[in-house]
Amino acid sequence: MTKKLLPEKTLPTILNCEVTAKSRLFQVEALDLEFSNGEKRQYERLRGNRSAHPGAVMMVPMLDAETFILVREYSAGTHDYQLGFPKGLIDPGETPEQAAIRELKEEIGMGCHTTTRLKKVSLAPGYFGSSMQLLLAESLYPEKLEGDEPEPLDIIPWSVHNINELLAREDFSEARSVAALFLAQAYFKRTNEAAAD
Amino acid sequence: MTKKLLPEKTLPTILNCEVTAKSRLFQVEALDLEFSNGEKRQYERLRGNRSAHPGAVMMVPMLDAETFILVREYSAGTHDYQLGFPKGLIDPGETPEQAAIRELKEEIGMGCHTTTRLKKVSLAPGYFGSSMQLLLAESLYPEKLEGDEPEPLDIIPWSVHNINELLAREDFSEARSVAALFLAQAYFKRTNEAAAD
Repeated sequence: MTKKLLPEKTLPTILNCEVTAKSRLFQVEALDLEFSNGEKRQYERLRGNRSAHPGAVMMVPMLDAETFILVREYSAGTHDYQLGFPKGLIDPGETPEQAAIRELKEEIGMGCHTTTRLKKVSLAPGYFGSSMQLLLAESLYPEKLEGDEPEPLDIIPWSVHNINELLAREDFSEARSVAALFLAQAYFKRTNEAAAD
Repeated sequence: MTKKLLPEKTLPTILNCEVTAKSRLFQVEALDLEFSNGEKRQYERLRGNRSAHPGAVMMVPMLDAETFILVREYSAGTHDYQLGFPKGLIDPGETPEQAAIRELKEEIGMGCHTTTRLKKVSLAPGYFGSSMQLLLAESLYPEKLEGDEPEPLDIIPWSVHNINELLAREDFSEARSVAALFLAQAYFKRTNEAAAD
């Protein structure tokens, strides 16, 4: 497969960047931009308050070859309970893999012997640069770490044969969980095809 | 396929909700929550400033059965150029389908005769409830509307046979574009299988 070459782009110049709002976790910056064609615009972007933050991880934990694990937890942004994959912030000094194993122990009471990076995704690059490494977690083993959740998460094993049913659910809505599910499925399809060759 | 029943959950009570930061586009709210087990926590959540906003749309436009269209545009959140599907906010009074057709005319200079809802996704339900309807757009026809972009977007036809190459690219990172790509692929797989039956 040839690597598709796209025309080079010249980034806009940031003429000014100002923090216009700041809370405990977030800050909003107003950017004065000049595009390479001379057009000027003001954009707003969001940042987490920890400026050099290493990002976040989300794991697709495989209980066995035909079952993955979902968690259900309260989501303040939508004020409801949402189904999705376990996730969390990478602590300073951790690799994504170390963060993945720690978060699994905290959220579903299991570690894993094998992690595979699926893809690094962004949330809304137009105004929010927050990044998340999606990983497959296999060879699980029981080990519990205390997390900081206000209540235990529901842990829900789900069969790979019922993926369409999951995708049809309104409470399985997070784009990153949807992406992780399909990326894991594509990974297994590739490895199974390679094994069959 | 049986509908999987999950145990009922009792939502936490919102004891207090206060706007702690506000910019032109965003506001941050601090929520004092009491969970059903009595645990109390303060959460922060983000909101767009237009409170009753109908959300956003993202389209997978099919130029023909084997080619979809990507756009490349400047992304302030990551300060780089990102590949992804055309998208935009739903204007007040518009249906998602009307917004999809308008945005296609503005961003790629084409309308479409057929739209199919793929899934409604959320961004980061834990702290940001923003929702986006993902749609497939077929039977394209040329029609240009003026948009408000500071520079024309690059319009990049991509073959469905080169999806792995696209997924491997660091500048195709937005989780919602990744989800839309796979959902479109799954839709075509289902309709092709149904046609073959």
